[in-house]
Amino acid sequence: MTSQARQITIAVDAMGGDYAPANVVAGACQALHESGGRFRVAFFGPEDTLRAALRDQATQPGGHAPSEDLYSVVHAPEVIDMHDLPTAALKTKRRSSISVGLHHQRDGLVDAFVSAGNTGAVLSAATLILGRIRGIGRPTIGALIPTAKAPCLLVDAGANVDCRPQHLLEFAVMGSIYVGAMRNIPDPRVGLLSIGEEDSKGNEASLAALKLLRKSGLHFAGNVEGRDIFSGELDVVVCDGFTGNILLKFGESVPHFLKTKFQAFAKASLTNSVVALVAKNALRRVMKEMDYQEAGGVPLLGVNGVVIIGHGKSSPKAIKNMIFRAEEMIQKAVNVQIQEMLTQTNA
Amino acid sequence: MTSQARQITIAVDAMGGDYAPANVVAGACQALHESGGRFRVAFFGPEDTLRAALRDQATQPGGHAPSEDLYSVVHAPEVIDMHDLPTAALKTKRRSSISVGLHHQRDGLVDAFVSAGNTGAVLSAATLILGRIRGIGRPTIGALIPTAKAPCLLVDAGANVDCRPQHLLEFAVMGSIYVGAMRNIPDPRVGLLSIGEEDSKGNEASLAALKLLRKSGLHFAGNVEGRDIFSGELDVVVCDGFTGNILLKFGESVPHFLKTKFQAFAKASLTNSVVALVAKNALRRVMKEMDYQEAGGVPLLGVNGVVIIGHGKSSPKAIKNMIFRAEEMIQKAVNVQIQEMLTQTNA
Repeated sequence: MTSQARQITIAVDAMGGDYAPANVVAGACQALHESGGRFRVAFFGPEDTLRAALRDQATQPGGHAPSEDLYSVVHAPEVIDMHDLPTAALKTKRRSSISVGLHHQRDGLVDAFVSAGNTGAVLSAATLILGRIRGIGRPTIGALIPTAKAPCLLVDAGANVDCRPQHLLEFAVMGSIYVGAMRNIPDPRVGLLSIGEEDSKGNEASLAALKLLRKSGLHFAGNVEGRDIFSGELDVVVCDGFTGNILLKFGESVPHFLKTKFQAFAKASLTNSVVALVAKNALRRVMKEMDYQEAGGVPLLGVNGVVIIGHGKSSPKAIKNMIFRAEEMIQKAVNVQIQEMLTQTNA
Repeated sequence: MTSQARQITIAVDAMGGDYAPANVVAGACQALHESGGRFRVAFFGPEDTLRAALRDQATQPGGHAPSEDLYSVVHAPEVIDMHDLPTAALKTKRRSSISVGLHHQRDGLVDAFVSAGNTGAVLSAATLILGRIRGIGRPTIGALIPTAKAPCLLVDAGANVDCRPQHLLEFAVMGSIYVGAMRNIPDPRVGLLSIGEEDSKGNEASLAALKLLRKSGLHFAGNVEGRDIFSGELDVVVCDGFTGNILLKFGESVPHFLKTKFQAFAKASLTNSVVALVAKNALRRVMKEMDYQEAGGVPLLGVNGVVIIGHGKSSPKAIKNMIFRAEEMIQKAVNVQIQEMLTQTNA
C-alpha cells in the first residue's frame, strides 16, 4: 500500500466468461502476484465456488495463492451467462456477480469492475448502475485492432448500432482521451470512418459528425477509409457500432480464412507441402499479432466508473492484463479527462 | 455470328481507368481474339487516340489486331477522369466516352457497356441515361469477395450509403438473381449483414429489412455476422453501401498488412529470413486469391441495361474478363429475371 492514497480495489466478475471461474481466478491471482501488493482484488460470485477455486490455486502448477489481505470474496449467488438477454437477466438475477460487483463500485467499495462475461449485460448494468459521465449520451466499447504500427482503437465496436452525429463526436473524444492516457501520447490521431477521404463522402450521420469533429479541438485527420485502419497512421477510428462490430468480426476471421487457404495450398503438391511446413511457423507468428484477444479486454467508456470487458474465451493472461488495464485507467483518471475534454468540446 | 440472333455488340469505355487506353484496348482485343467472333466491340473515346492504340496491338508482343468487321470506333472526344465529380462531369463533358457509350446502349446500338473509369460517374450516368428497372429504387454495385469456397457477392459495395429497408430487399433480389445466373446455381444463399445472428440484432434499417427478407421467397439465411463472409457458406451478403464499402476496402488491405508483418518477421533473425524466403512463395499464392481485382469487374445492377464496372487499375486480363461477363449477363437475361422476381416479391 502506498502512503499517499488508499489502496485500490479491483472487482473481478469471477463467473464471467466461458472458462469461469478457473481462468478468472487464475488470472487475478497472477495479477496479484506480479503487482506485489499495489492493489487488492474483490472476487464476485458464489462464495463456495470461489473459495474452492482459490484453494486450487495453491496446488496448481504455476498457481499463486494470494495472501489473505490482498483479496476478498463477495457472495453473489446468481450467474448471468452468455445466452441470457441482458435487460431480462438484470431484472431477474439481481444477485448476479455483474450486478453486485457494479453496485459495489457505485457505492465506492471498489474502484473498477472487470468482466469477461455477457458483454451486453455488463454494458446495460454499468450504464444503469454507475450512470453516464455528464455530457455523454452513449457509453461506448472500443476495440483494439492490430496495425502495421501501434494498435488502433476502433470505437464504437458494437455497443451503439444507430448513432447520431453527437454520439460519434463523443466516441472520438472518449477514444482520444483513452488512447492518449494509456499510450502516453499527447495528441492521438483520430479518423472518421467513411467511404472516401473527401469531406463530401459519407452517410448522413458521418457527414454531420465530420463537421462537429472539424471544430472539436481533437487531432482530427478527417475522413478515412477501410484500408487506412491497418496502416497504423491512426490511433483512433470512429464509426457507428453497427459498422464497427461487422468490421471487427470480419477482421477477426482473417487468420482462420488464411489458414484454410494455406492448407489448400499445402495439399496441392508435394513441393507445396514441404514449403508449407517451413512457412507454417512464420505464418503462425504473424497471425498471432492478429489475435485481438491477447491484448486483454477493452474499456467501457462513458460510465461513471472504470469497467473493463473481456472476451468470453479470455485466458488467465487476458484476465491479468484486464486487471492491470483497470488499474492504469484508475491511476490516469481517464474519466476526469473525458469530462474536461467534453466541457471544452461543447463549450 | 450465330444464325439465331443478331450479333451482340459490347461498348467499351476505352478511356476508363488509370492505364487507358492501352490496357483497355489490349484487353478488348484479347477478348475478341478468344471469343472467335461471338460478339463485336465498340470502342468509345477520341478517335485518333483509339486508332493509334488499335494499330499498336498488331505490333505488340502477344497483341492481337482484331479483324475490322469485329469492332468499331465511336468518337467521344471528352474524358471523365478519376478526379472528376460525377454529376458535374456529366453536365460539362457531354461528349465523354461514358456518356456517349451509355447513350448508344439506351438507343439499342450496343448491348452492354464496360468501363474501368470513374465509378461514381458511370453509376450516375447509367442511372440517368438507361433508367432503372421498374420496381428498383436504387441501382447497386456488388463486389465479389473471395471465401473458403466460392466468392461471395457483397451488395451494396458503396453505391448507396443511406438505405431504407426496401433498398436492402432490392439488393438481395438483384444479388441473388445475378449470382444464380452467373454461377448456374438454383437458389443462392442470402445473408443479411448484422451484429448478431438473432432476429433481435441489427440497426433500424436492417431490423426492418429482416422482416421483408423473411417473406421474400429468397433462400434467406437470416442475420449473418462479419465473420461469416469468409466462411463461404453464403453466396450473397446484403448490407448498406456505407458498411459494404468500408468492409470491402478493409478486406482489400489485408494482403498488404500481412506483407508488412511478414517482412518484420523476416528481419528479426537470420533463421527467420531463411524461413521467410521459403514461405514467400506460398504466401504470395495465397494472397493472390485475395486480390479482388483479378476477377474483372462487377455489375451495376438495377439499371435498364448491362453495365460492368472495373477497378481503375484494371489489367488487360481484367478488361477481357469484364467483357466476357457482360456477354454472359446479356445471354442470361439477368435483368428480365430481376424484373420477374421483383414482381413476385412485392406481389
